[in-house]
Amino acid sequence: MMKIAVDAMGGDYAPKTVVEGVERARDEFSDTEYLLFGDEKQINGLLKNKDRITVVHSSEVIGMNDEPVKAVRKKKDSSLVMAAQAVKSGEADALFSCGNTGALLAAGLLIVGRIKGIPRPGLLSTLPMVSGTSGSFNLLDSGANADSKPEHLYQYALLGKYYAENVRGIQNPRIGLLNNGTEPHKGSKLTLEAHNLIEADKSLNFVGNVEARDLMNDVCDVVVADGFTGNAVLKAIEGTASAVMHLLKDSIMNSGISGKLGALMLKSTFKDIKGRMDQSQYGGAVLLGAKSPVVKAHGASDAKTVYFTLKQIRTMVDGRMVEDFTKYWEDLSAKKAAESDSDTPQK
Amino acid sequence: MMKIAVDAMGGDYAPKTVVEGVERARDEFSDTEYLLFGDEKQINGLLKNKDRITVVHSSEVIGMNDEPVKAVRKKKDSSLVMAAQAVKSGEADALFSCGNTGALLAAGLLIVGRIKGIPRPGLLSTLPMVSGTSGSFNLLDSGANADSKPEHLYQYALLGKYYAENVRGIQNPRIGLLNNGTEPHKGSKLTLEAHNLIEADKSLNFVGNVEARDLMNDVCDVVVADGFTGNAVLKAIEGTASAVMHLLKDSIMNSGISGKLGALMLKSTFKDIKGRMDQSQYGGAVLLGAKSPVVKAHGASDAKTVYFTLKQIRTMVDGRMVEDFTKYWEDLSAKKAAESDSDTPQK
Repeated sequence: MMKIAVDAMGGDYAPKTVVEGVERARDEFSDTEYLLFGDEKQINGLLKNKDRITVVHSSEVIGMNDEPVKAVRKKKDSSLVMAAQAVKSGEADALFSCGNTGALLAAGLLIVGRIKGIPRPGLLSTLPMVSGTSGSFNLLDSGANADSKPEHLYQYALLGKYYAENVRGIQNPRIGLLNNGTEPHKGSKLTLEAHNLIEADKSLNFVGNVEARDLMNDVCDVVVADGFTGNAVLKAIEGTASAVMHLLKDSIMNSGISGKLGALMLKSTFKDIKGRMDQSQYGGAVLLGAKSPVVKAHGASDAKTVYFTLKQIRTMVDGRMVEDFTKYWEDLSAKKAAESDSDTPQK
Repeated sequence: MMKIAVDAMGGDYAPKTVVEGVERARDEFSDTEYLLFGDEKQINGLLKNKDRITVVHSSEVIGMNDEPVKAVRKKKDSSLVMAAQAVKSGEADALFSCGNTGALLAAGLLIVGRIKGIPRPGLLSTLPMVSGTSGSFNLLDSGANADSKPEHLYQYALLGKYYAENVRGIQNPRIGLLNNGTEPHKGSKLTLEAHNLIEADKSLNFVGNVEARDLMNDVCDVVVADGFTGNAVLKAIEGTASAVMHLLKDSIMNSGISGKLGALMLKSTFKDIKGRMDQSQYGGAVLLGAKSPVVKAHGASDAKTVYFTLKQIRTMVDGRMVEDFTKYWEDLSAKKAAESDSDTPQK
C-alpha cells in the first residue's frame, strides 16, 4: 500500500480543501494511505472518517511570505518539513503541498534529496493544447532554477520522457527544446549546446527546437526549457488565456441586449473552453529529479484540484517513474564512466 | 521634409501591399517623402501617382529563407541593402521593411549602424493590454539578441523610455523588468544585476520586477527583457491569444443551432476583441539603438499595417527620438567619464 505525505496546512483554503480532496482520493483509490501533517484539532474536526488516514500533529506552518530556504531550515515542526521528513525516512512514498512553492522546492531538495547525478531538479508543469489528441503538454523546468547549464536541460529531456511515458502513458514521447527559432542553428549559447546534447542521445525522440507560439498546437509532448524562460512562458500563457477570457466577458457586458442574449446561448461553449483551459485536471507541478515524487498544487486549489493531484501522485508512485528513471540514469552513468575509462590511453 | 527608405520587395504580398500602404501614408502625411527600392517595372505598374515618391530600381531580393548576415553582405543590389544604404548616406531618415527579420536586423546593425556605446540594439515590440488606459505596452528586447548582459538590459530601459515618451507621448513611462517573481531579490544572475543598474538610474521611473502573467494588465508601459526570454514571451502571448480564439471558434462550430445563433449575436463583440488584440494598429517592431529608425512589419502585412507602420515611423522621426536619446546618452557617458577621472587618485 502506498503512502502519501500531505502538508495539510499549505494553501489558501487549508486545511479544509486539502482534507476534502484527500478523503475523495482515499475513497476512490483503495491502494492509498495518507499521512496528514498539520493542526490535529482542525484536521480531526474536518475528517469524515480516518480510514487509511493518519493525522500527525505539527505546531508550525510555513506561510506564503516566508523566505523558503530559511523557513525549511528553521521551522522543523512545520507541517511541510515534517511531511518531507516522512518521505526522507521512507515512511511515505511522495510529498504533496499547496503551500509556499519555494519552500516545497527547498524541502524537496534539502530534505527529500536529489537523485545522484541530477544537481538541479526541474519543475514540470502540464498545460493545455488546443489541437491534437493528447490534450496537454509538459513544460520543464517551469521555474525551479533561475540559471541553467546545457547538461541540466539534457537531464530535463530525459526526466520529461520518463514522466510522459510512466505517468501519462505516452509511448516514445516527442521532446522539443524551447528556442527562438525552429532551425537547429538558432538559439542562445545555452540552447545551442543543449540541442547538441539532447540530439546525441538516441533514446530520446527529439523533434528539435520548438517556439513558444506553437506549444498549444501539438508540436511535442515535452517542452524542455531553462527555468527562467520556462517560468516566463508558463506565466505568459496563463496570463494571456485569462486576459482574453476577461476581455470577452467585458465586451459581452458592454454589448447590449443582443450580445447578452448571444452570450446566454453560448454559455455551454464558454464553459467548455474554460474546462479545456483548466490546468487543475492535470494535477500539480512536479519536482523531477528528486528521490521521490514532490508535487505542488497551486495555492488557491479547491478539493477537486487536490484530488486530481493526489491521483497524479498515485500514478507516479504506481508507475515507478522515479525508480525507472534512476535505474536508467545509473546504467547510463556507469556506461559513460566505462567508456571514458577505455578512452584513457594505456601506459 | 522627411524621407523614408522602403524595401518594397519584402513581405508575403510585396510589392502590392507595400505600395498601397505607402500611397495611403503619402496622401495623409504631406510632410513625408518615400524612396521605394525594388523592381521598377512592378512598382511603377502599381503606383497611382508619383507625388513625393521616388522609385529606385534594385535587381535582387533577399528572401525569407536567406541566411541574414550572408545575404546582407552578398546581395548588394537587393532592395533591402540599397534602402539601408540610403539611410546610411543620409539620403533617407528611416528604414522600413516587411521582409526577412534577421536580414533587416543585420542591415540595421551593419549598414545603418549603432549609436556609439550601444553595442546590442534591441527589438521593441508593442503588445495589447486588456486593462488600463494606454491600450498597449512595449517589450524590448523581443528577439534581436539571444544572449544579453546586464548593461544591455539597462540600455533597453533607457531606449524604451525614449520610445514611450517621444513616440507614444507617455510622460515618465513606467519601466518594468521581466522576472520570475516581483520581489527585488528574485531572479537570474542577469536580472539581479540588471535590476541594480536600472534602479540606480534615477531618471527612470522603475517600477521593479514584473511577471509575464501581468503584462496585459497595465503593470508598466515598457517591459525590459533579454532577447531570448522577450522573444519567448512575445510568441507565447501571440500563440495563446490565437489558440484561445481558435478554441472559441471550434467550440461554436460544434455547439449546434443555439450556439451558432449566439455567435451571430456576438459577432460585433468578437470583432471588437479581434480588433483589440490586433497588433498592426501599433505599427511594427523597432530596432532601438540603431542610428536611425529601422522598422519591421510582419511578413503577412496588408496595406493597412504598412500604413500604420509608416505613421509610426513618421512619429519617430518627427519626435526626434533617436536624436534625443543620443544626446542624453552622450551627456551621460561624458558625465560618467568625468566622474571616473575625478575618482582616480592624483599622483
